Amino acid sequence: MMQIIKNKNEISRIVGKLKKEGKKIGLVPTMGALHEGHLSLIKRCKEECDITIISIFVNPVQFGPNEDFARYPRDFERDREMASQEEVDIIFYPEPGEMYGDRHLTYVNVEKMEKIMCGKFRPGHFKGVCTVVLKLFNIIIPDNAYFGMKDFQQLAILKKMVSDLDINIQIVGCETVREPDGLALSSRNAYLNQEERKNANILFQAINLAESEVRQGRSVKTARISAVKMLKECSFVKKIDYFDIRDPVELKALKNPGKQNMKILIASAIWFGKTRLIDNKVVEMSQNQS
Amino acid sequence: MMQIIKNKNEISRIVGKLKKEGKKIGLVPTMGALHEGHLSLIKRCKEECDITIISIFVNPVQFGPNEDFARYPRDFERDREMASQEEVDIIFYPEPGEMYGDRHLTYVNVEKMEKIMCGKFRPGHFKGVCTVVLKLFNIIIPDNAYFGMKDFQQLAILKKMVSDLDINIQIVGCETVREPDGLALSSRNAYLNQEERKNANILFQAINLAESEVRQGRSVKTARISAVKMLKECSFVKKIDYFDIRDPVELKALKNPGKQNMKILIASAIWFGKTRLIDNKVVEMSQNQS
Repeated sequence: MMQIIKNKNEISRIVGKLKKEGKKIGLVPTMGALHEGHLSLIKRCKEECDITIISIFVNPVQFGPNEDFARYPRDFERDREMASQEEVDIIFYPEPGEMYGDRHLTYVNVEKMEKIMCGKFRPGHFKGVCTVVLKLFNIIIPDNAYFGMKDFQQLAILKKMVSDLDINIQIVGCETVREPDGLALSSRNAYLNQEERKNANILFQAINLAESEVRQGRSVKTARISAVKMLKECSFVKKIDYFDIRDPVELKALKNPGKQNMKILIASAIWFGKTRLIDNKVVEMSQNQS
Repeated sequence: MMQIIKNKNEISRIVGKLKKEGKKIGLVPTMGALHEGHLSLIKRCKEECDITIISIFVNPVQFGPNEDFARYPRDFERDREMASQEEVDIIFYPEPGEMYGDRHLTYVNVEKMEKIMCGKFRPGHFKGVCTVVLKLFNIIIPDNAYFGMKDFQQLAILKKMVSDLDINIQIVGCETVREPDGLALSSRNAYLNQEERKNANILFQAINLAESEVRQGRSVKTARISAVKMLKECSFVKKIDYFDIRDPVELKALKNPGKQNMKILIASAIWFGKTRLIDNKVVEMSQNQS
């Protein structure tokens, strides 16, 4: 029987009891509006842990003043039904006032990594993400926590936070789930109209083009130019926030990804109509490629 | 038999085992150069906990580039002997490389509170303190942690951090230990020459003067002017970084401390010769005053 808990002290108490019984605890932090991507995280968590907890909390602190906090899709009944079908054990569903007191002042910053890529265009976003995730970790104290690779920068930053702060929690990154045409699943895809939706896979196509070019031995610069050209030819693409090729651990910019066995991250964020889309791919350069 | 542990994974393992046995764990974080002030924290910890751990780590991240990191007093053998006499169970004594990897990027900021008082004159100091304390908390996961009220701003900031981040650790603030003439014990008192030492209690005297004035119903402004005047008349006082009267929880500046039962913090930092001294007093205004 799935439990829905809104109070942080109560969930701490419940999880503390389960841990004393020797149960392995898995946490899937979400902002709700669940889709197949979230369900894949839940499935992985259920495979690896005894107890699967999902949190549903649209974290105000990670939205900028002109971003989509107010209109972010919320449908708790639908989320509850989906979680129940996946046999989630506990939903942690706090109110904003439960998570942030009257005068919250403490924030976690992963310097440098929080200022690039999406961080450059969403100032304060990753500070908000790190702070709420650390709070969830401290409230629930899971053994494992599951995040999608779709938000690759978030995943890399959280791994760095956990390592730098000596947090004894395993961060598990899970493969991006895609629509048949390649579009990465995202709660924000709900903002796309029919015509936009038909064309929205251009982002993944451009990433694949860049991949193909670096695999053929072209430079990062050349691959990037080709991908940006493809994006610009699509009339729905209003702005390219970034199209970057970086190392996938510390997100440092790469100039020459040609070395064998090296992993490279190709990541981009674009404005597609009025919707901001992000996507990425981690590519392992094999020996045969220059 | 007191254990000395240098490795963070090892101490995590040892403490984890003790916790499973139901032991209550107390941590006294220090930078070494132990004095009676530290010993009072250790004694309190031993009263309240089953296992008393002290950490000795001169944290480079909380020192500014022109501060006294290099010359900060270090004498591990003496510290070890003193801890042993107090029957400390474990000393955690990591090398800097054990605490900070090659590229540490994650920091904890308690905004606003970190920028005032000492934070105004030591930029980055409290960020360094919060980060290392959170790391120690995550490595050791004590039930209680003990800090002196001599570093009152540090204590208030750490309490705020623990509350804001939902950290399940009790922060215990312990009374400042003083020399017979009133000088607050500090490892930095070792920097004072004989003549300076004779006069260094002027800081506590000035704080007591301000206390007496507010108790007599004078305004914060008047009390502050009297105390600053007393400090300026002492030739060893080279600079007054601040002399502040604030609320002792969130450290907001107070204009009128006259209300009954209200607690006020009187806190100051001065340069005494080439040594920076800090001190403070928390005063409870009683019904009969003002």
